[in-house]
Amino acid sequence: MEKKKIFIYDTTLRDGTQCEGVSFSVAAKLRLAEKMDSFGVDFIEGGWPGSNPRDMAFFEKARALKLQNAKISAFGSTRRAGISAEEDSQLALLVEAETPYVTIFGKTWLLHVTEIIRTSPEENLKMIEESVAYLVSKGRKVIYDAEHFFDGYKDNPDYALETLEAAKRGGAEFVCLCDTNGGTMPDEFASIVGIVVERMGDIPVGVHCHNDCGLGVALSLSGVKSGASMVQGTFNGLGERSGNANLTTIIPNLVLKFGLEVECAKNLKKLRDLSLFVDEMANLRSDTHQPYVGSSAFAHKGGVHADAANKAKRSYEHIDPALVGNKTRVLVSDMSGRASIMMKARELGVDVNSKDPSIKKFLDELKSLEFRGYEYEAADASFSLLLSKFLKKGHDHFAVRGYRVIVERDEMARTTKSEATVKLEISGTVEHTVAEAHGPVAALDLALRKALVKRFPEVKDIELADFKVRILDSEAGANAVTRVQVETKDSSGEVWGTVGASDNIIVASWEALKDAVEYKLAKDI
Amino acid sequence: MEKKKIFIYDTTLRDGTQCEGVSFSVAAKLRLAEKMDSFGVDFIEGGWPGSNPRDMAFFEKARALKLQNAKISAFGSTRRAGISAEEDSQLALLVEAETPYVTIFGKTWLLHVTEIIRTSPEENLKMIEESVAYLVSKGRKVIYDAEHFFDGYKDNPDYALETLEAAKRGGAEFVCLCDTNGGTMPDEFASIVGIVVERMGDIPVGVHCHNDCGLGVALSLSGVKSGASMVQGTFNGLGERSGNANLTTIIPNLVLKFGLEVECAKNLKKLRDLSLFVDEMANLRSDTHQPYVGSSAFAHKGGVHADAANKAKRSYEHIDPALVGNKTRVLVSDMSGRASIMMKARELGVDVNSKDPSIKKFLDELKSLEFRGYEYEAADASFSLLLSKFLKKGHDHFAVRGYRVIVERDEMARTTKSEATVKLEISGTVEHTVAEAHGPVAALDLALRKALVKRFPEVKDIELADFKVRILDSEAGANAVTRVQVETKDSSGEVWGTVGASDNIIVASWEALKDAVEYKLAKDI
Repeated sequence: MEKKKIFIYDTTLRDGTQCEGVSFSVAAKLRLAEKMDSFGVDFIEGGWPGSNPRDMAFFEKARALKLQNAKISAFGSTRRAGISAEEDSQLALLVEAETPYVTIFGKTWLLHVTEIIRTSPEENLKMIEESVAYLVSKGRKVIYDAEHFFDGYKDNPDYALETLEAAKRGGAEFVCLCDTNGGTMPDEFASIVGIVVERMGDIPVGVHCHNDCGLGVALSLSGVKSGASMVQGTFNGLGERSGNANLTTIIPNLVLKFGLEVECAKNLKKLRDLSLFVDEMANLRSDTHQPYVGSSAFAHKGGVHADAANKAKRSYEHIDPALVGNKTRVLVSDMSGRASIMMKARELGVDVNSKDPSIKKFLDELKSLEFRGYEYEAADASFSLLLSKFLKKGHDHFAVRGYRVIVERDEMARTTKSEATVKLEISGTVEHTVAEAHGPVAALDLALRKALVKRFPEVKDIELADFKVRILDSEAGANAVTRVQVETKDSSGEVWGTVGASDNIIVASWEALKDAVEYKLAKDI
Repeated sequence: MEKKKIFIYDTTLRDGTQCEGVSFSVAAKLRLAEKMDSFGVDFIEGGWPGSNPRDMAFFEKARALKLQNAKISAFGSTRRAGISAEEDSQLALLVEAETPYVTIFGKTWLLHVTEIIRTSPEENLKMIEESVAYLVSKGRKVIYDAEHFFDGYKDNPDYALETLEAAKRGGAEFVCLCDTNGGTMPDEFASIVGIVVERMGDIPVGVHCHNDCGLGVALSLSGVKSGASMVQGTFNGLGERSGNANLTTIIPNLVLKFGLEVECAKNLKKLRDLSLFVDEMANLRSDTHQPYVGSSAFAHKGGVHADAANKAKRSYEHIDPALVGNKTRVLVSDMSGRASIMMKARELGVDVNSKDPSIKKFLDELKSLEFRGYEYEAADASFSLLLSKFLKKGHDHFAVRGYRVIVERDEMARTTKSEATVKLEISGTVEHTVAEAHGPVAALDLALRKALVKRFPEVKDIELADFKVRILDSEAGANAVTRVQVETKDSSGEVWGTVGASDNIIVASWEALKDAVEYKLAKDI
């Protein structure tokens, strides 16, 4: 493949918001646009001014953004059938958005022309050409998105190509082929893109893919191999149904696997940060298994793999994780011995001497804890507290005397009340507190913080981000061992995991809550 | 492509457990094997007998499974360097597993031969040939997994092919090419598979891919297009790092897009059920955006799409969702499911007239309950109690006045005590009982039965078989809604499932326990 520049066109702010459960405030969109610009994204599709007032508000404020690299584009459709472009209120809104680029989509597939927008094939071609020409006459650069291009092409290749010719005559700068339903397979996709690239000549071609067959990334790459020079997609693959083509995966593939020139190549180390930022803005839990950037993407669990990963980095890692801002992790579950403990301790920044006799005791304790149901894979904070205790680094900030939880249900009144009391000793002073909540764990959490807040006001800064319960030996029925995993975060953005395990679910929850607070106190010193 | 049979080789029970946070009990592995068999999976890799005692226990019990289609395979490695196959304890364990098939992996990549297992290229070839031959001599059919095949091939194609020849000489039935690090791109993958298929002649070739570049599905498909006839993968893509190639996506692509012959094609409608079952067993939250089977996979949010999907089904859906057991959802207006309620009622033996006006009320109630976190897929007993209540069939055997649980932890004495009181009304008489146990749920269970046993001695005959807890909106921290699922059995061998949901974990547990007992009383009349 020749070394030419590939343009990254982001539609997280438009198509990404079609994702079930995702919406962005105007402020969030502005922050995302700045972040994507500084990462090196070439085009940012900001929204559809015709579809909702929030998108227009974004374009108004976006004019004040000082972008280094990215061009903002407003998204919309071709004019309606039977009127002139000048009369079309939706095109007027696109002009009003005052963006350097405008992206409009039009129909390729005759099924849609006749059954959905119910017009003639000829009028559809005019709608495309005249809409593009109108926007160009208003000083806009135009990207033409050919909706359902692949289904349309398979149905009627000549008409599909005519729609692109219409856009070209209108003065489009790019034509982009959309696999709108996400049902196309890579080989046919590649061959159709190749035909279009040849036919379009000097007009560059883009591709816009979806992940309905789990092939969003593969289709985008095969489009590029067939000569496309623009890839449309969203970060973390946000989008309707099974999502859009995932730029978070496509970009490192283009750069690290194909060696292509992409503007954001120089910022690849910030890829994981950007991915986490997008999830944060969308209020989504990050996919820990996401290729390249997920926290599990370079995590090794199997004894064989962990051992080999230690011997030769390349053994079980296809790239150096640092290239995308990620890192190798050894999962504690299969910690067979001293070597992996040492690796883990180094990863956590705990200073350990491998000759320290406490390491042996620590290993024995770890095995016994794992046997009883504790699991440290997702509980680095509990692990590092335990390790510090064995190495006699750090100290306890408080001692627990006891706690009690009462849950009372009145079935007649249909009310439930949970009350928790906690008794701690802090530097010789006993704190005995009580709190009420709907559920017993929430009540315990409140009472614990109430007992600590006078002496350690920083506990106000922590927030429970995730609470998971797992019954281990569920066949044991009501006496089963329960493992509770908690994720906690503070205003620094750090997230830490803790764990508790017991045949009493309240005790298991308490252990995880207590470690979460202990970790905060230890790290803030 | 010619129409030949493609074999589906599942490694969810082995490679899938390398997934961070995933482990299966022996009981769960057995249930999964049965479910995958009835779905039509051809091979089920059960585990690595040499790696842990739990996997050996699975093979012992798996002999009693009555499988219709699937062959169980035990996984392991070639013999160690410098000893004979007969002397290798790990190979002995593979034989001891008594499975019809054995899958062993060996080294392809010289980097691994010299740096990881530290032996000579020649000895490595002997290790492969002799290990395969030894297993064949013990009556096993052998699948040879060529680890790091693609990296090895790119490094030294002749040696890579020699390792396969060694396996062939040893008598392997299949050779399988593993992209162990998941870093290979589709084009080079396809061309290497093509070369191997030609070279191997009548020995069929498999592919084993990972998702590190977001291409696990694409690579598997391109392998098949290049002549591979076995695809190894895991359901829902469970696996180390970014996961294994996702069979849940690959299978419908092979069947619906390529029209290939796959044994499970006839059960494709059960694909979504199987996917949910795997997540349930792994205690994982399902990926709602998963291609084909996710609850969002055919959900339409955009006004344009929803409108068009209404006008012409094909407009925004690449397949009919019913083909994979999924359905179209329009994300604002919720459709009712009278027809499916009728089907379910018939399945449960509840006599319903579809004209009964209570059905409408029942549907409304069901929607509201599901919204609040109840789920009836695995809780037929709760569902049929609810349905009977709406149809005014059957009657309540007791009324609950209330209950209370106290959990008290003395951290100095390291003791925990749980006490539960229950107040019921049975035919006008109030029963007020108290019981103690280690955990609060066990105490509640005891107190409930104590209150019922005088009037309904049959409660002595029931036993809690399974108790599961799931946090639904875990981001809500300690206030999250908890779903409790209980399985109960009695001496007749019947097992029934019940469910409870609440933001109070004690209340959710109570609901499931109470339904379990109610169902027993109702069925025994």
